[in-house]
Amino acid sequence: MTDSPLERLNDIRTSIDNFDAALIHILAERFRKTKEVGALKAAHDLPPSDPTREKQQIQRLRHLAESSDLDPDFAEKFLEFVIREVIQHHHEARK
Amino acid sequence: MTDSPLERLNDIRTSIDNFDAALIHILAERFRKTKEVGALKAAHDLPPSDPTREKQQIQRLRHLAESSDLDPDFAEKFLEFVIREVIQHHHEARK
Repeated sequence: MTDSPLERLNDIRTSIDNFDAALIHILAERFRKTKEVGALKAAHDLPPSDPTREKQQIQRLRHLAESSDLDPDFAEKFLEFVIREVIQHHHEARK
Repeated sequence: MTDSPLERLNDIRTSIDNFDAALIHILAERFRKTKEVGALKAAHDLPPSDPTREKQQIQRLRHLAESSDLDPDFAEKFLEFVIREVIQHHHEARK
């Protein structure tokens, strides 16, 4: 490796920017799906949150995180962060 | 569409689970890259945080969010959430 530290830093940042673009686009599609869930739940009078489903999601993501060397606590915090936003959307959709 | 509401709900949830697996794996790779950044910064005594870079990242992600119909405020909150974790890693790496 003959790159200077700043060249190396810029090279890694290009990868980070690409990953961030992918994350944003997948999150956009995920919210399109949860809006569909919200509309379906509102139309059939199902409760906005589902603690059993959330527990299963957390366990699954913790395992996926472990297998990809990501901190499982971070994966759990991340899912909670996203779910908080989704539940807020669901409540707003019922206003 | 002849599916029952619960069948439709389970179908959408399968997509959500697939997106979550993708998000976790991309986040895992993103943290591998920021750990590399952290090591590089520690080795060359560069500051752990970089406010100019962060502002550029926020503006870029807000634009990407807008173009994919995602709430730009959510995109910004998401990036701040991830960067907080990264800065914590960088500080831990210097202990």
